[in-house]
Amino acid sequence: MLQPELKLRRDKIRSLMALQGIDAALIACNVNLIYTFGRVVGGYLYLPLHAPAQLFVKRPCNLAGEHIHSIRKPEELPALLKENDISLPTKLMLEGDELPYREYCRLAACFPEAEVVPCGTALIRQARSVKTNVEIEMFRRSGMAHVKAYQQIPSVYRTGMTDRQFSIEIERLMRLEGCLGIFRVFGQSMEIFMGSLLAGDNAAVPSPYDFALGGKGLDPSLPGGASGDFLQPGQSIMVDMGGNFNGYMGDMSRVFSVGKLPEKAYVAHQVCLDIQEAIVQQAKPGTVCEDLYNMAVGMAEKAGFADYFMGVKQKAKFVGHGIGLEINEMPVLAPRMKQELEPGMVFALEPKIVLPEIGPVGIENSWVVTTEGLEKLTPAPEDIVEL
Amino acid sequence: MLQPELKLRRDKIRSLMALQGIDAALIACNVNLIYTFGRVVGGYLYLPLHAPAQLFVKRPCNLAGEHIHSIRKPEELPALLKENDISLPTKLMLEGDELPYREYCRLAACFPEAEVVPCGTALIRQARSVKTNVEIEMFRRSGMAHVKAYQQIPSVYRTGMTDRQFSIEIERLMRLEGCLGIFRVFGQSMEIFMGSLLAGDNAAVPSPYDFALGGKGLDPSLPGGASGDFLQPGQSIMVDMGGNFNGYMGDMSRVFSVGKLPEKAYVAHQVCLDIQEAIVQQAKPGTVCEDLYNMAVGMAEKAGFADYFMGVKQKAKFVGHGIGLEINEMPVLAPRMKQELEPGMVFALEPKIVLPEIGPVGIENSWVVTTEGLEKLTPAPEDIVEL
Repeated sequence: MLQPELKLRRDKIRSLMALQGIDAALIACNVNLIYTFGRVVGGYLYLPLHAPAQLFVKRPCNLAGEHIHSIRKPEELPALLKENDISLPTKLMLEGDELPYREYCRLAACFPEAEVVPCGTALIRQARSVKTNVEIEMFRRSGMAHVKAYQQIPSVYRTGMTDRQFSIEIERLMRLEGCLGIFRVFGQSMEIFMGSLLAGDNAAVPSPYDFALGGKGLDPSLPGGASGDFLQPGQSIMVDMGGNFNGYMGDMSRVFSVGKLPEKAYVAHQVCLDIQEAIVQQAKPGTVCEDLYNMAVGMAEKAGFADYFMGVKQKAKFVGHGIGLEINEMPVLAPRMKQELEPGMVFALEPKIVLPEIGPVGIENSWVVTTEGLEKLTPAPEDIVEL
Repeated sequence: MLQPELKLRRDKIRSLMALQGIDAALIACNVNLIYTFGRVVGGYLYLPLHAPAQLFVKRPCNLAGEHIHSIRKPEELPALLKENDISLPTKLMLEGDELPYREYCRLAACFPEAEVVPCGTALIRQARSVKTNVEIEMFRRSGMAHVKAYQQIPSVYRTGMTDRQFSIEIERLMRLEGCLGIFRVFGQSMEIFMGSLLAGDNAAVPSPYDFALGGKGLDPSLPGGASGDFLQPGQSIMVDMGGNFNGYMGDMSRVFSVGKLPEKAYVAHQVCLDIQEAIVQQAKPGTVCEDLYNMAVGMAEKAGFADYFMGVKQKAKFVGHGIGLEINEMPVLAPRMKQELEPGMVFALEPKIVLPEIGPVGIENSWVVTTEGLEKLTPAPEDIVEL
């Protein structure tokens, strides 16, 4: 990562800090270290408002350079800051929604003179919600790799497979195209392996996670996604794998079918494509997020699919979500979200309908907000593909 | 999960709570919910010292039963406890090393009359460090699946592969044998995909993570493990995949080689096998963890491999680690660990040597402490396998 790009990102955070009178941030969480330092390190980035950022690193042992300091523990920070003529913070921001309680308290205790505020997570997530040109280009590249993997999906299907076996072959395609595999989610209770493959009624099984659809999963220790059941004729199959090819979590779903589906499935699928198209026509800088959600729900209702839109028993309360270094960033296209779209925001739009006895249909693509409207990051055919 | 097993686990936690005068725990983190409720839920298990546990669940919407209450937010808990004739806590334990700071504060604020203590993580980890018979049986089963996947590794090797490609094929073998894929680690800064495959000098590249060995990784957003380089004749390759087949993280490493290795590699490998054997002979209930670590280091030194034992530039400061629902549990076989082994403890033992210009050699198996000594959970041939 080039220094000007890192400087740009840090300055986005600094601008928001200045608005709240915060004169330094101590950044310790992996996604925020990737954002501000360009890579994961075991350590801390100290970001003062009016001085260069300083990296305090425990591991790896071979990082060196200007403004990089080797430490064994965070208690060494104040003395090292003084040695480097950097004033100690007056109002220090920590990542309050990510750092574990005791780790937060330990870091706060290193700066007993400072007022310590926990708004670091929210503030950095706000900075991250509008992507830089470099980040958008990384999304474009990962979108192309995601598409390339999905194009090969029909080639790995075999009659008599379980949803788990089909998922494993698709995971392999993703990995061979360069997917790093790791799936980063915001929120300590959220977890998923590489993504989900949902076939038939399994798509309607409620899960503990706040993803768009659920699924029984293969084990009570991870109750989401594929169930291990055999794929059956007349079932729809939704493939929704996370596209992490370079740190940025692209998102994309496509629907496949074992043989022909009942006509209703194609009708419902087209409703989702129409919802996508309507949102794409509407969305531009200044559009209010909840308006897009309400439009989607209104169209699903009008088409007679209100009870099946975004799930059956347990419904997702959003139709789109910001994506970035994590799969669930700002903005969220959901009720009561008054946030307006801005150029550079990147989100996944996923109108989906779950039909009893058939399965999930619909679409998901990743989009970047431009000055004129939306640009699709995952361009690929959107019809239901018969296997 | 049967109720008597869950009751046994909850009572292990209650015993430790009683010692500290804690009259209730509020459990919110996934691994601890798996441990105490048998599955992941979106919600909270309230565990009083002298009354049955109560589950307060947000998601999934279809969980019902005795002592299960549907909620929308944790602020509803005090009223629901009163309704169910359960007294509010006097001293409440939260998971202070896992819950994010703001979430911890929110839960604590639900019980303004209670003294809230953050020792939940440490205390439940202590309870979890001695496995029940049911847990040990789950480890035995996952060990067999792990072995079955590893036996097939030579069959997926192709000349001209990169370490990444070889890793992908092994990940697929693991998944086909039932591996859930998700790799749970304790500590917010620790992360890894399914495990690591390290070939040649890449094994000596320091990483930001506190795993036994490092690796450059494929991207600065995940700097650990395979590097994407081609596998070369004369290189050793260590496969170290996480064996999560049922929630329990088995651990196992085996070494492969492209063609024959220099004689030194076989000597060093045998030193690791000898260290394993010496530890297995020594270890039994009552053995002090650091004694086993010191014995391992002493043997490596005596054999002339001190500079290469557990890494080169950046060394792991342990030779074994507890395993369970997470890959890094108690006990740890490391310096200054005065903890004594107890029957039911399960740990991975991984004496490894990294040889410059060759790569990593050594061994890793999972072991359970029995009344007499150690039982191997991952029985499989341990020689270096030529591909």
